[in-house]
Amino acid sequence: MERPAYVAVDWGTSSFRLWVIGTDGSILGERRSGEGMTTAASLGFAGVLQAHLDSLSVPTDVPVIICGMAGARQGWVEAGYIDTPTSLSAILTGAVSVPGQDRDIRILPGLAQRSRDAPDVIRGEETQLLGALSGESRGEQIVCMPGTHSKWVRVIDGTVSGFSTFMTGELFDVISKHSILAQAIAGAGEPDTAAFEAAVGAIFRQPTMATSLLFGARSGQLLHGLSPAGAKAWISGTLIGAEIAGALSSAGDGATITLVASGGLQSLYETAFKSLSISYQTIDADAAVRRGLSAAAKAIWPNDERTAV
Amino acid sequence: MERPAYVAVDWGTSSFRLWVIGTDGSILGERRSGEGMTTAASLGFAGVLQAHLDSLSVPTDVPVIICGMAGARQGWVEAGYIDTPTSLSAILTGAVSVPGQDRDIRILPGLAQRSRDAPDVIRGEETQLLGALSGESRGEQIVCMPGTHSKWVRVIDGTVSGFSTFMTGELFDVISKHSILAQAIAGAGEPDTAAFEAAVGAIFRQPTMATSLLFGARSGQLLHGLSPAGAKAWISGTLIGAEIAGALSSAGDGATITLVASGGLQSLYETAFKSLSISYQTIDADAAVRRGLSAAAKAIWPNDERTAV
Repeated sequence: MERPAYVAVDWGTSSFRLWVIGTDGSILGERRSGEGMTTAASLGFAGVLQAHLDSLSVPTDVPVIICGMAGARQGWVEAGYIDTPTSLSAILTGAVSVPGQDRDIRILPGLAQRSRDAPDVIRGEETQLLGALSGESRGEQIVCMPGTHSKWVRVIDGTVSGFSTFMTGELFDVISKHSILAQAIAGAGEPDTAAFEAAVGAIFRQPTMATSLLFGARSGQLLHGLSPAGAKAWISGTLIGAEIAGALSSAGDGATITLVASGGLQSLYETAFKSLSISYQTIDADAAVRRGLSAAAKAIWPNDERTAV
Repeated sequence: MERPAYVAVDWGTSSFRLWVIGTDGSILGERRSGEGMTTAASLGFAGVLQAHLDSLSVPTDVPVIICGMAGARQGWVEAGYIDTPTSLSAILTGAVSVPGQDRDIRILPGLAQRSRDAPDVIRGEETQLLGALSGESRGEQIVCMPGTHSKWVRVIDGTVSGFSTFMTGELFDVISKHSILAQAIAGAGEPDTAAFEAAVGAIFRQPTMATSLLFGARSGQLLHGLSPAGAKAWISGTLIGAEIAGALSSAGDGATITLVASGGLQSLYETAFKSLSISYQTIDADAAVRRGLSAAAKAIWPNDERTAV
């Protein structure tokens, strides 16, 4: 392997992703596993990381930059939060060193919104955000990062003014598995785009009715013969539509919307945006987090000939 | 026991409640059990009912009026739905007889709202509604029947114009048990009224943000030291507040709000209404369902000297 400049790690609650980055920014090696914070907390963070580095023969003098739940209180080393409002670049300067390691390892902080009405935290997505927007972004930028806990961040002239977490992915999961609607979606086959779009439209017309429209997955089956796939799409569309309606309720008309996603989530959110005639641009989630980690590496090790490319 | 006029049964998904009613309307006997539709479907509805009647020595010529899930497709005998808009009194006329019984047993129908955007069904609460409002109710009446699936019904000049189901109780249950918020509420002690009211207020100010504000149970703990009891109350307040905000979004200013509830739910909804300065009246849920069943008995057996009191 070509000599690496640094190693970038996105260490989430349930997933671990590592990229070895070369001096020209190219990806020299990659590892993915299910050793997220939950698993690593019992196995030991240092050992998990070292095993992946060993498998890619990364020398000890190559530094590692980490974002995500490894920096949570119940993670490896607590990396704290940067309070909003904050410049994007402040994220770069808040990294903490992991003590007692042979290697230089830094963990990036999260973001905290300390308002009483809408306290909220981000950990990991701040790095995607950094990668999705350049530090010089102008005007109002709304960045949507969907997932188990979707994050919507509002950036005005390069300053993170606020953000909201929506429990969309997790609610879909617990409702699908544990509520009466589990019966309605049992045996669901191919995705039903029409039902998804119908639910997105319904919640947009009645944006305060999320916890009611969900029940339409059952009523629709009783009254209109909605299929299991249709019921599943209805639940998904209601939750994603509620998220978009809520997130955009405080956005200005001229805001630029950026979707940071990949795979199935990308396609669901794009379908929703299109059906609502909402303009957006998409940035690949993996590329965004790598770009954010790269910006952090360059800020933290500016005099390092390897990262200062 | 004094000679009964009729037997009234509220047969829900998970609960069975039976009252033996005398010719003067008094309660001569009462039974409650967990033999709801789910259990009765495997034990046999006829046997479950007969055992309760036998235990109270109810003669075979005393008729039985039933509301609730016993009339669902997966219940005892399907009692169908009356479509909205409908007069309150139409519910009384849609009862079906249970065939092949020695006793005269009738099951009341549910209500169906067949709109494409908000298909919805009610089964059981239509009888509470009937008991809560007189057939001659004038003006706009909004009736709230909280529970696992809360029902809000709008009645204008005695006509049921529409209704909405909110999955409030069930969402609280699955979120509390199966989501990341389960950690936040673990070990919750006494109810935290201040946190409940704060959440109700927050969702009223941002009524499209329900799936986001829920996450405040976690963020509030991380950022503001919210207690487990506070987190539990925050989830409850967010869901109940979202329900009230959604339900009232289509109500007229002069509408009369009636809460049909008892016990802990009554007190939670009353706390929410008071904190929002919403005027309401409360009717006991048990009394309402008995009154509705009584109205049905009198309509179905008008020439029976026992019920025509």
